[in-house]
Amino acid sequence: MNEAEEEWRPGFHRVTSPSNPIVKQLSALSAKKKERDRTGLFLGEGLKLVRDALETGFRVHDFIASAESLQEGAVADTAAAVKGAGGRVLSVSRPVLEKLSRRDNPHSVIGVFEQKLAPRKDIGREGLWIGLDRIRDPGNLGTILRTADAAGVAGVALIGECCDPFSLETVRASMGSFFHVPLATADEAAFLAAAKANSARLLGTHLSATEDFREADYAPPLILVMGNERQGLTDVLATACDGLLRIPMREGADSLNLAVATGLMIYEALKHPQNAATLAKAQPLRSTGR
Amino acid sequence: MNEAEEEWRPGFHRVTSPSNPIVKQLSALSAKKKERDRTGLFLGEGLKLVRDALETGFRVHDFIASAESLQEGAVADTAAAVKGAGGRVLSVSRPVLEKLSRRDNPHSVIGVFEQKLAPRKDIGREGLWIGLDRIRDPGNLGTILRTADAAGVAGVALIGECCDPFSLETVRASMGSFFHVPLATADEAAFLAAAKANSARLLGTHLSATEDFREADYAPPLILVMGNERQGLTDVLATACDGLLRIPMREGADSLNLAVATGLMIYEALKHPQNAATLAKAQPLRSTGR
Repeated sequence: MNEAEEEWRPGFHRVTSPSNPIVKQLSALSAKKKERDRTGLFLGEGLKLVRDALETGFRVHDFIASAESLQEGAVADTAAAVKGAGGRVLSVSRPVLEKLSRRDNPHSVIGVFEQKLAPRKDIGREGLWIGLDRIRDPGNLGTILRTADAAGVAGVALIGECCDPFSLETVRASMGSFFHVPLATADEAAFLAAAKANSARLLGTHLSATEDFREADYAPPLILVMGNERQGLTDVLATACDGLLRIPMREGADSLNLAVATGLMIYEALKHPQNAATLAKAQPLRSTGR
Repeated sequence: MNEAEEEWRPGFHRVTSPSNPIVKQLSALSAKKKERDRTGLFLGEGLKLVRDALETGFRVHDFIASAESLQEGAVADTAAAVKGAGGRVLSVSRPVLEKLSRRDNPHSVIGVFEQKLAPRKDIGREGLWIGLDRIRDPGNLGTILRTADAAGVAGVALIGECCDPFSLETVRASMGSFFHVPLATADEAAFLAAAKANSARLLGTHLSATEDFREADYAPPLILVMGNERQGLTDVLATACDGLLRIPMREGADSLNLAVATGLMIYEALKHPQNAATLAKAQPLRSTGR
């Protein structure tokens, strides 16, 4: 990356102009999947998110904050921690923060992180996994990660061509859960192979299913397989499922939002004592003092 | 409203320029709450939505479609029905549709509808109601309306200062459920007065509650009261509740998305036989042939 405008403390750079080349590069990361793919980096907002990244072993490439907020104790401490771990600290102006977050009322802290995925072979290895078939909406994906985190889900598999999990919209909708949920990607064949290798059962939701989702057996290792927002599950995935479930709706109703339907399935699965035990045992984060 | 560019069939108007005064007025309806409040109108997209409005007794003020789609059978039939009920039909260009829907890939049909709310005294009168305390996010509200529709909920009450239910974002996120769920608004005092008058019990969710939401009594008449996205329930509402419930989460997890949490509560309430019976009995819409 290009040099910052000025090095004002060793490892701390000051960038005030939105036309600075560094800002242009970071802005491309914020707006373009292609740039995220090329660099293997992604953006997320908020001090808590950066702390979560440090705690969960994600590498923080850049710590970006307003000059004022870098004076504060917690922000200054985290900036020092990022720098200590080899990251770069950028002190930026508010217009730069607005440009990177693409909104008028930006967080005072933005992190740039190295992308990391869970190994494909982990899919369905233990506990409760969620498989998302060609999910398209980054808001839905982020909301599902948030629910999965709250419920202590073991991991989320993105099956086939999905929206970019590293988009700002997904990270934002996950509301800080992003680093707490192992995320793997696989095409349909690789997903099914991993599930089989791990002897995980597959339960899917399907509009034409007859078994009520409240009557299913959710014993782990289990993967809840949720279909695309418009099309539902592919025939291959539906056929591969050990059970197809329906969420009851009034006759004539359209459908449920995917994140809501996934939430209903996850919390229904939590009624199985083994999944509930996983929830209770889930490693609490160290307090981050917020 | 100003005259259209040309009257090409009686009651049918052709509008091709985005700078046409009619388009400016409609565009203000799409973008500005103030204009929706002033006119008592609102916009929604899609042929199904217009048909739903006609079937559920909402007045369709304008039926807006591309000239090409007005040739098609179903669109032409609905246009005729709107005109028959005293509405106006506008044949517009694609740039006009893009301007009104504020996106690049617009629906080919847009409706302008008269706002209508359920009487405040209906809140909690029978069945299962949802009370949303100062909900801020139009996407959450639309998603909750979609879930409420699917579950046959009797109505949704907006408590205090909420986002505009008649925004395009809310109608869009409701995915066609908008006209199927009675919607009422009330300040906190009026909400509580209606609940009391109707002898409806109030069950709220609260982060500090100790009763698991899966162990509560959901017998109707019942109102599930959900708090603001950031702040949760006001103290007044929390105190007024007959029970406060918690949705279990792993220690350290942040929270659930409001629409997901509301979905979990609604479907939990459906396990009560009286609510389930309401779902089964819910009047199915006449088929709309889609």
